[in-house]
Amino acid sequence: MHGSISRELTELEALLGEETRPGTLRPGGRTAQVRAAVLQAAGDALAEQGFAHLDLAEIARRAGVGKTTVYRRWGSVPGLVADLLMDMAEQSLPRARTGSLLGDLKANSRLVQRTLTDPRQGMLFKAVIAAAVCDARTAEALHRFYDARITEWAPCVQEAVDRGELPTGTDPREVIRAVSAPLYYRLLASGDPLDEAAADQAAEAATAAARSGAYITP
Amino acid sequence: MHGSISRELTELEALLGEETRPGTLRPGGRTAQVRAAVLQAAGDALAEQGFAHLDLAEIARRAGVGKTTVYRRWGSVPGLVADLLMDMAEQSLPRARTGSLLGDLKANSRLVQRTLTDPRQGMLFKAVIAAAVCDARTAEALHRFYDARITEWAPCVQEAVDRGELPTGTDPREVIRAVSAPLYYRLLASGDPLDEAAADQAAEAATAAARSGAYITP
Repeated sequence: MHGSISRELTELEALLGEETRPGTLRPGGRTAQVRAAVLQAAGDALAEQGFAHLDLAEIARRAGVGKTTVYRRWGSVPGLVADLLMDMAEQSLPRARTGSLLGDLKANSRLVQRTLTDPRQGMLFKAVIAAAVCDARTAEALHRFYDARITEWAPCVQEAVDRGELPTGTDPREVIRAVSAPLYYRLLASGDPLDEAAADQAAEAATAAARSGAYITP
Repeated sequence: MHGSISRELTELEALLGEETRPGTLRPGGRTAQVRAAVLQAAGDALAEQGFAHLDLAEIARRAGVGKTTVYRRWGSVPGLVADLLMDMAEQSLPRARTGSLLGDLKANSRLVQRTLTDPRQGMLFKAVIAAAVCDARTAEALHRFYDARITEWAPCVQEAVDRGELPTGTDPREVIRAVSAPLYYRLLASGDPLDEAAADQAAEAATAAARSGAYITP
């Protein structure tokens, strides 16, 4: 799944030209292909083995890329995982536009639920969250990932405020966080079932709490 | 803090006689003292170094207890961490009885918030949650810990149903989970501030969602 999205991204980058994505990337389609292959291999290794056993040389081998390229470009395992998270944030689906708050939030919670229960993606998130506990750089990359996803979905809540569905002063970001939180709690803490019913309940609870004014910033 | 609670537990066990706690414990106050000292040392080591570097011999040394005693009684690091979690569940504060649902849930959310932001306890939970990602035995022990805590606090919600504060059919355990979830999401995923305001918001949101019927079991 990730593979085909990576390929699509590579094609998109080829179309757009890489000057649209400044920073870590050097111009040229080959660079984007290398990045896609290495991030794919890093994600596979993370999902299979966890963070502690990640090895840049082994990832280079899996990706069919020279070891020195990987060391030169990413430098370290936390550096590579940070880039993987940035790539995942960029590739994640855009927000819903169903016309109702509950519809949008259900789309969000079901997307999170599908991601966390996907065998590969679920293990990947668990591995990165576990690594973030004792690695500050990975923790920062993880926080940036959630920040990007919350920024993508927050307009669903702002539009609900503008439509008069929610009280003025509601913090859109808090509402989006509230949708994800019960699903991560099940995944990481309580171990309760992480099914579609749990996703719908998370969206319904966040909607009800938002309507009551629980997320108005003081 | 943990030390004084451990001592109180030891005194309580001495009063009750250990036949009230069957299973892993042999009779006698000395056994309870050894357990308290070893669990204290295990918790300190977890909070300082994380799970990966835990070493039974080192914990025995810290606790001033013979190495063979620790190996014979707990067998392995996951076995020791499972017993530590059971001890933490037993020692955790009893549920609140404020007379209102919001009052009780705020007491719960502030207790969780204080625990997760306490330097020692917060690191301990992060370390155990990280370890549970790749160790099934630790994951089971963690799930039992939350199960015990949810069972302790669920009557606050059932009493609110009985008082007519919440709709009939509300699942008390889901409401208690909903209070904790946003706090764990901040700790483990988003990195957003985990302050008293976040705790109060979690309690208010769970109360509002429960009143709207979001936690009625289908």
